[in-house]
Amino acid sequence: MNELNRYQQIIDGMIERTRFEGKPENLYEPMNYIMSLGGKRLRPMLTLIACDLFNGDINKAIFPALGIELFHNFSLIHDDIMDEAPLRRGMETVHIKWNMPTAILSGDLMLVKAYEFMLKTESLARIKVLDLFTQTAAQVCEGQQWDMDFEKREDVTVNEYLKMIEYKTAVLLGCALKTGAITAQAHDNDADLLYDFGVSMGIAFQIMDDILDAFGDPDKVGKQVGGDILADKKTYLLIEAYHLADASQKARLNQWVGNKEANPELKVKEVLAIFSELDIEGVARRKADEYFSKADRLLDAVAIEGSRKENLKAYSQFLKNRVS
Amino acid sequence: MNELNRYQQIIDGMIERTRFEGKPENLYEPMNYIMSLGGKRLRPMLTLIACDLFNGDINKAIFPALGIELFHNFSLIHDDIMDEAPLRRGMETVHIKWNMPTAILSGDLMLVKAYEFMLKTESLARIKVLDLFTQTAAQVCEGQQWDMDFEKREDVTVNEYLKMIEYKTAVLLGCALKTGAITAQAHDNDADLLYDFGVSMGIAFQIMDDILDAFGDPDKVGKQVGGDILADKKTYLLIEAYHLADASQKARLNQWVGNKEANPELKVKEVLAIFSELDIEGVARRKADEYFSKADRLLDAVAIEGSRKENLKAYSQFLKNRVS
Repeated sequence: MNELNRYQQIIDGMIERTRFEGKPENLYEPMNYIMSLGGKRLRPMLTLIACDLFNGDINKAIFPALGIELFHNFSLIHDDIMDEAPLRRGMETVHIKWNMPTAILSGDLMLVKAYEFMLKTESLARIKVLDLFTQTAAQVCEGQQWDMDFEKREDVTVNEYLKMIEYKTAVLLGCALKTGAITAQAHDNDADLLYDFGVSMGIAFQIMDDILDAFGDPDKVGKQVGGDILADKKTYLLIEAYHLADASQKARLNQWVGNKEANPELKVKEVLAIFSELDIEGVARRKADEYFSKADRLLDAVAIEGSRKENLKAYSQFLKNRVS
Repeated sequence: MNELNRYQQIIDGMIERTRFEGKPENLYEPMNYIMSLGGKRLRPMLTLIACDLFNGDINKAIFPALGIELFHNFSLIHDDIMDEAPLRRGMETVHIKWNMPTAILSGDLMLVKAYEFMLKTESLARIKVLDLFTQTAAQVCEGQQWDMDFEKREDVTVNEYLKMIEYKTAVLLGCALKTGAITAQAHDNDADLLYDFGVSMGIAFQIMDDILDAFGDPDKVGKQVGGDILADKKTYLLIEAYHLADASQKARLNQWVGNKEANPELKVKEVLAIFSELDIEGVARRKADEYFSKADRLLDAVAIEGSRKENLKAYSQFLKNRVS
């Protein structure tokens, strides 16, 4: 993973140097704060890897790669307000550390700054990149609205859930990859295959996320296991459980889901027991594997020599095997 | 004003036809709602007039003109959340009619849609237009943050206030005009003069807005006179009043400003009495005239024949004479 380490260093270095300075300071500081909270920098990594995949000059992919990371962080600031989340990566969220109006506005500015970086894409690729980015940004908003709507609905189907995570999470991975491909002047067909690869990977990751939250090793996940269960989140697991449960299991689920008074440890234990009876972990892992396999086939179909695909395969494997 | 009427019709027709359709509907409906609340469509009008000023094809200016109007409406949705405003043009604001998360998210989507329209600018002008739009959007965010910060400060100077309204309001008028000039392939120098003209007009309009709120004819203004005084808004008038007041007048101002318990009619009457003693209306009108005159000089300096400037002069005069 030497190449991958080099990309990670380039991105970390660029983010380090991209300190937003401007006035009023209380508008710019939240942007620096959210960027400083770290993360895998998955999206910009994918952009650089995709650019390299097609023999592109990765220097031409760095600005749009960062633009996509800024967009991702804009969405975190605003999602945290909407979800009333107090913590992000163990630190106070922006609307808690500052206040709600400043979180709205610094998020808005961050979206504008994301476009500023996308506009720095070199001229041959610029309009294609901007069009894709704009389409993706709209879909991410739609996904977040679906997610909020689903929280109030009892009848969300598995397919609706998969569509929601595709929009909320997966299309931005597809966009990150295709952006790299566009900056490398890849053929449209290959760029589209890479986009679809990213979307499939994104859906698989999100299902894995749901699995880790319920069944992960608490020491490795780095957060309390069962957080989604306690928050009554409509995850893939819960939707499948309702789908597969018989009448008595449904009644038991209803006893715990939405029950804010319940003893937390007991609630997690009992819901996990129902998940276990229904082999929800197995169902979810098979669904994730389905998307991982689809992603593999899409990558195989990209019309370049196999050896060039090693970086992306290695990175996908690294993500697939993650335990946190 | 025949040409102006024609532009107004083009814009109104385009806005009518631009119904946002997409899912989830509760994300798209707020965008249609805010656009349906009407308004003068000042910004897109300026874009078309500026394009025409330089003999441009106004068909090429329509998409960016609408993009700027969408941006303006995005900023209204988010500003209304931050200002906790219940009404906009006499109708419920988006966060009241729907809810706060949906108002945040439909605002975000509207900003993305604004970029989608800006991206439809024809290719020769596109990047210049996008760069200007991005710079302006960032400044509008900064202006809104200054405005919120000023509400908590007692020592805001006249110059700070003028800078705030330049960013929050005036630069978008400059941007609207310069965008029209760019689509018409105007010389850079002329496009810049027109931008500065728009900024000066914008500052003058905002001061006029403050004047109308305090001294306008209630029948014509269409809202309660003295609303800013009741809301303790730091307007140009109040800042100048504090600046010019002697110790006893300051003490009287302090008695009313920030006093939420006061009888509303009495509060407006007493603050207006102090404004009158200090001739704040005269001071403000002279300041507005200063910016109107500066704008005139900038427009005079644009290197095109005088007869082509008549539309913009007529529209400026129309805005200058407004009573609401």
